[in-house]
Amino acid sequence: MAVIAADLGGTKLATALFDAEGGLQHKATAPIGGRKGRAVGDLIRRECTGLLRAATKKGQRVKAIGIGVPGICRMEEGTVWAPNIPGWDRYPLLEDLAASFGGEIPVSIESDRSCYIMGEIWKGSASGCRNAVFLAVGTGIGAGIVMDGRLLRGAQDIGGAVGWLALSRPFNPEFARCGCFEYQAAGDGIARMAREQMAAEKGYAGLLSPKKIRAEDVFRAYESRDPIACRVLQDCIELWGMAAANLISIFNPEAIVFGGGVFGPAGQFMEAIRKEAGKWAQPIAFKNVRIEASTLGGDAALYGAAFAALDHISGN
Amino acid sequence: MAVIAADLGGTKLATALFDAEGGLQHKATAPIGGRKGRAVGDLIRRECTGLLRAATKKGQRVKAIGIGVPGICRMEEGTVWAPNIPGWDRYPLLEDLAASFGGEIPVSIESDRSCYIMGEIWKGSASGCRNAVFLAVGTGIGAGIVMDGRLLRGAQDIGGAVGWLALSRPFNPEFARCGCFEYQAAGDGIARMAREQMAAEKGYAGLLSPKKIRAEDVFRAYESRDPIACRVLQDCIELWGMAAANLISIFNPEAIVFGGGVFGPAGQFMEAIRKEAGKWAQPIAFKNVRIEASTLGGDAALYGAAFAALDHISGN
Repeated sequence: MAVIAADLGGTKLATALFDAEGGLQHKATAPIGGRKGRAVGDLIRRECTGLLRAATKKGQRVKAIGIGVPGICRMEEGTVWAPNIPGWDRYPLLEDLAASFGGEIPVSIESDRSCYIMGEIWKGSASGCRNAVFLAVGTGIGAGIVMDGRLLRGAQDIGGAVGWLALSRPFNPEFARCGCFEYQAAGDGIARMAREQMAAEKGYAGLLSPKKIRAEDVFRAYESRDPIACRVLQDCIELWGMAAANLISIFNPEAIVFGGGVFGPAGQFMEAIRKEAGKWAQPIAFKNVRIEASTLGGDAALYGAAFAALDHISGN
Repeated sequence: MAVIAADLGGTKLATALFDAEGGLQHKATAPIGGRKGRAVGDLIRRECTGLLRAATKKGQRVKAIGIGVPGICRMEEGTVWAPNIPGWDRYPLLEDLAASFGGEIPVSIESDRSCYIMGEIWKGSASGCRNAVFLAVGTGIGAGIVMDGRLLRGAQDIGGAVGWLALSRPFNPEFARCGCFEYQAAGDGIARMAREQMAAEKGYAGLLSPKKIRAEDVFRAYESRDPIACRVLQDCIELWGMAAANLISIFNPEAIVFGGGVFGPAGQFMEAIRKEAGKWAQPIAFKNVRIEASTLGGDAALYGAAFAALDHISGN
């Protein structure tokens, strides 16, 4: 028995075949290229069909398909809102795929952030937890949250929008773009904060070039102890710690897992983030939580989508 | 058919008889006085027994008893930690009451904050919601949280400790006492902030007396537009709004209900709090939430305990 998992990102689609025990047997990626709307749905169908045929040839029975999408899944409708995929405002992905795979292979769809935490609980840093949060820090910031063994979705399926956490006063009207926490401490935020500090510091003669700063440039400059890079990342450590603390005080979880593109390079700061979180969080909840970097890294969503597929056919 | 509800506070015990439709038929209160440890358990038993006898005399069959306690309920053990009741560190309340009421009348125990939100969902400001948060602002701050129809408890049953929310930098070591949010915006926090501002403002000649300031003094001085009272409460409005915003962005709930002793007098600020929350929260989640003051007020925990009792015997 096997399941197919797909992880749709902003630029590429990863698909994989998993056995029932969670072994990743085969993985493939395809670029999204300039595809829009239905063409992205077609790409998912094509890649899944390819994996399905290959599995069938080897005598493996694919029992379910799970898809992780970069946005919000409206569970009741089976539609997807994905801000980085043109035309996916209310895209009927579930209907689309159900038409292709018939009633034979059930398809489940989840947001990427839900997939991350399910993956880490199944096979990663939050292994076996019933209460855990995945804090995804990439271009933006979001969280996948499992409480008492169940995904937190919210009334409009947009729960976990932690990029909007209010963490520092006074309010800056720029926060209205993407949220206070994301504005300062997501990948784009790291670059933005460095640019702002460079503009403010006239005599700066460090490693960062004002032309085009991305988060990776700030991490690189940090390695050489560039003062602006140090200050910006120190600030981020405080904000990441405060956000972790807030999730710990609210949820009293067993694990907080940091992942996404920024963790990655920010993985080196886990001890500093733990220390910062310990200053702010409810002390008993803090004593009982582990704060870890993702162990599944870029495969977390694939594992989570596979788990969702298995969970779906087991009737949960 | 009827149920008995009890709401144990820091200074008094309220008990009530409810019919199955949620009608409050009879209510009584008893002072805790100097009672400690087992004597408080005895008081609960005595009051419930009294209500039970009175109901039986009138021909009403009491089917369940629900108790709300001012602290943490360890659900697996049936023990209670209540910081304001001496000797209730791990008090075996469930065992205690089960021994009194035999197997005949099932007893359920919940934390007061869980009772608040269940009460408001059953008969108050969050009526009919499947996703809602009660933000209790009294001497301290805590939240009762229901997600997808289920109480959020956390791994050690201490979820909802939102008094510890990190909302403003830099970290002040004083926050370690009770949490950043509670330190500044609970009842005690309001008094503390006013004292701090008076100490800092040498020429202050307003209405507040430095000797003994309580939250109610600050609210009274606010009515006469005392400048320190205005500043302190303006600050609280910002913090209450930020906390509501964080709960909205994380949970995407249908309702946030403000209650506890401070709401009360702070109920006049609901519109200002809504406006503040709207600045910080995820915009779609904010558009879909209502932010209300408690309608059940001091009876919220009684209603919630009655609901928990009914829920318990219905097998949920």
